[in-house]
Amino acid sequence: MTTAHHQNRPHAQSRLHDQIAFLLEIDKLKRVIRRNTLIDGSRRENDAEHSWHLGMFALVMAEHAPPGADLDRVVRMLLVHDIVEIDAGDTFIYDQAAVEAQPGLEQAAADRIFGLLPPEQAAEFRALWDEFEERRTPEARFAKALDRLAPIMANHHNEGGTWSLYKVTARQVREKVAIIEEGSPTLGAFAVDLVETSVARGHLTP
Amino acid sequence: MTTAHHQNRPHAQSRLHDQIAFLLEIDKLKRVIRRNTLIDGSRRENDAEHSWHLGMFALVMAEHAPPGADLDRVVRMLLVHDIVEIDAGDTFIYDQAAVEAQPGLEQAAADRIFGLLPPEQAAEFRALWDEFEERRTPEARFAKALDRLAPIMANHHNEGGTWSLYKVTARQVREKVAIIEEGSPTLGAFAVDLVETSVARGHLTP
Repeated sequence: MTTAHHQNRPHAQSRLHDQIAFLLEIDKLKRVIRRNTLIDGSRRENDAEHSWHLGMFALVMAEHAPPGADLDRVVRMLLVHDIVEIDAGDTFIYDQAAVEAQPGLEQAAADRIFGLLPPEQAAEFRALWDEFEERRTPEARFAKALDRLAPIMANHHNEGGTWSLYKVTARQVREKVAIIEEGSPTLGAFAVDLVETSVARGHLTP
Repeated sequence: MTTAHHQNRPHAQSRLHDQIAFLLEIDKLKRVIRRNTLIDGSRRENDAEHSWHLGMFALVMAEHAPPGADLDRVVRMLLVHDIVEIDAGDTFIYDQAAVEAQPGLEQAAADRIFGLLPPEQAAEFRALWDEFEERRTPEARFAKALDRLAPIMANHHNEGGTWSLYKVTARQVREKVAIIEEGSPTLGAFAVDLVETSVARGHLTP
């Protein structure tokens, strides 16, 4: 961390300048609004507060992660996972056309936004985001499971929430729950319980 | 992580129940509103999105942390640092009476909120929050420095922001900047530049 550039003022100042520019830019994540609401239903959630909540999910749910998973890398992934939405916007996972258009937009967003950082940091954050998206490592599968679980909890607490609002069916939700099971069998089983309870209560169309 | 309680269903279910209760409770942090605004000045910031932003500050500013600091513990501390404000509310650091009343309120809040978790997790999060508040470790000093830096950046970008609004003087701000210098000399020097630029521009009363 304390390398030769500390002796090289112009280089060090340029790095700090780029780091600040990135931190100012990502403030915009606080204005990217998701479909789902807060747990109390009072308003829709933004991507920044959602990312904080998922970081806490990872720390609290540690024992439900795959054995040996590096929880701190899960947290890092969750903090960066939605930053591309500053340019690409939030995609509602039940809107198939939007989901198909999203990857291209998000790649361009990643190039631009992470590219504000000094090159090796841009590569570091890009690698975290790629890892999350590719879902090949236990850490990424667990991170994605948490990202899927949170809105199910919110909808379960809001009499169906976005499920009712956007006419999502239980069959569609169950497909998404499979991703939770792949990241954490315990949390997958918990999500299935929430979904089936919502169906039984008439808050989710069978 | 994978201990005997996985074989013990009622115990495991009770743990998961408590973890979920905690994660639902801390959703309220999204409704605790701070004095300072977003960087674009469009609205006041909430504690949850602020905590996310600081987690990103820690990852991006890693090279400016004290040598050997555990950055992942800094991130964890920053994710939990404001949770007590769900009960205790946000305190404006230039409101001396509120600052003096705050510690008692925050201790009670920590007891209640972290106490929702299984006991050893309650102790783990409480220890992180205590570490942050006591500011004795390099990690805590760095975390607190970032917490002080972020609103200075926001005010600098908003023609004085809360400084103008609440009649804060440069002398008061310089006292707070000392805490940034203790956590990171580089970021302390950067904060001094922002403060003096704001004074020169007439956005902060000398």
